[in-house]
Amino acid sequence: MSLQNIRVVLVNTSHAGNIGGAARAMKNMGLSRLVLVEPEDFPSPDAVARASGATDILDAAQVVGTLEEALVGCSLVLGTSARDRRIPWPLLDPRECATVSVEQAACGSDVALVFGREYAGLTNEELQRCQYHVHIPSDPQFSSLNLAAAVQVLTYEVRMAWLAAEGRPTKVEKLETTAMLDAQPVTVDELENYFGHLEQTLVDIGFLDPAKPRHLMPRLRRLYGRSGISKLEMNILRGILTETQKAARGEPHKRRSE
Amino acid sequence: MSLQNIRVVLVNTSHAGNIGGAARAMKNMGLSRLVLVEPEDFPSPDAVARASGATDILDAAQVVGTLEEALVGCSLVLGTSARDRRIPWPLLDPRECATVSVEQAACGSDVALVFGREYAGLTNEELQRCQYHVHIPSDPQFSSLNLAAAVQVLTYEVRMAWLAAEGRPTKVEKLETTAMLDAQPVTVDELENYFGHLEQTLVDIGFLDPAKPRHLMPRLRRLYGRSGISKLEMNILRGILTETQKAARGEPHKRRSE
Repeated sequence: MSLQNIRVVLVNTSHAGNIGGAARAMKNMGLSRLVLVEPEDFPSPDAVARASGATDILDAAQVVGTLEEALVGCSLVLGTSARDRRIPWPLLDPRECATVSVEQAACGSDVALVFGREYAGLTNEELQRCQYHVHIPSDPQFSSLNLAAAVQVLTYEVRMAWLAAEGRPTKVEKLETTAMLDAQPVTVDELENYFGHLEQTLVDIGFLDPAKPRHLMPRLRRLYGRSGISKLEMNILRGILTETQKAARGEPHKRRSE
Repeated sequence: MSLQNIRVVLVNTSHAGNIGGAARAMKNMGLSRLVLVEPEDFPSPDAVARASGATDILDAAQVVGTLEEALVGCSLVLGTSARDRRIPWPLLDPRECATVSVEQAACGSDVALVFGREYAGLTNEELQRCQYHVHIPSDPQFSSLNLAAAVQVLTYEVRMAWLAAEGRPTKVEKLETTAMLDAQPVTVDELENYFGHLEQTLVDIGFLDPAKPRHLMPRLRRLYGRSGISKLEMNILRGILTETQKAARGEPHKRRSE
């Protein structure tokens, strides 16, 4: 499923910087289709500056004269709303909005997320063109988000829903080779080899008496067993044992870092 | 539980506008405690402009010289990270980050959400002061969010987690009295009265023959039953029936809006 079916529609935006910020947020979250209804100042260097590299989205943005034109081809339209309304309308929070948007887009339908003016939002007439209204649950004492910030929240939720729908993880680490080793857990046989090495070393240094072992090894097994040791950490632990054994034999030691 | 235990720490921010944007995002989401580690340009009119009314947060912001000072008193520190790392670290997505933050704050502990420089993020040393790293799942092809946008995403998730923990709804409508009536569903007895009135009216206008009712009423029951009719809508429907009956009796009609 592609996120390209989900378009962002900005209605009558005053500040070009917000258009740039919205484009950056969209690109960060993997969306690309931006439609501008009667922007007051576009194209604009302020938009390019705030887009911070998402200029491809600005260049491809469609500028139209009416909301109707912006919604052509859409089967699902969701409008952001912060205002009290006279006519109650089906209301979603951003997470619910993202879920239905991704479901619809997965069926090949076009979806529009509509954002209103910086100070006045969407008009009642515009809101009535939307099947759903979306409200970002802000503090009632200070409820109006910056336009680009609102686009960021909704597109973030769309990406989270999309990752979930695709069965992709919401967190991925790119690791270097050493780090890969560090992320891989040891196998039980590697752990057993370690316990053998550890036990011998403890005998070598005179800490463990094979004739009177008490509960020393079970306790150490319990400790290391629950620690989730990585392959890299195991290399370190084995290195410590080898050096310890050398020291016990009276061999000259050298620093690991040499 | 209060959100005041969760502080936002911005490290070595270059652009004062981003500090203002972060303050606005925090206030939108109900957070208030902002700590700035070596900001390059603060206080600044750019910060005030982008804060758009969240100046109380800027005025109360604590400016410190080191990350260590910013974290005094915290038992949980989460650092945002977009970069490949050499040492894997416990990694959370924004939703998981919000859950642990709100859990800790609910126990009275202080929590810090730490954000790095606009272009270079947090250093490895700074990241190692954090128990957890948080990564916003952006598109790998264009992964770097604007600083204030990143603050918006994390504080939004904190608010969502806080609303859930408090058992508060994530969507609340403030409705006028008429709208209240519109939001209230009719009761089954009101619906039954309507069906009675409807049936009589259909007889009055000659559409329903009581001797040969066919499946007309069951079909109308099915339609209106699934529509989730509100009390206000019911008033309208009953009004239509009353006027229809008058018309059927040959009484003079008047427009509803008169």
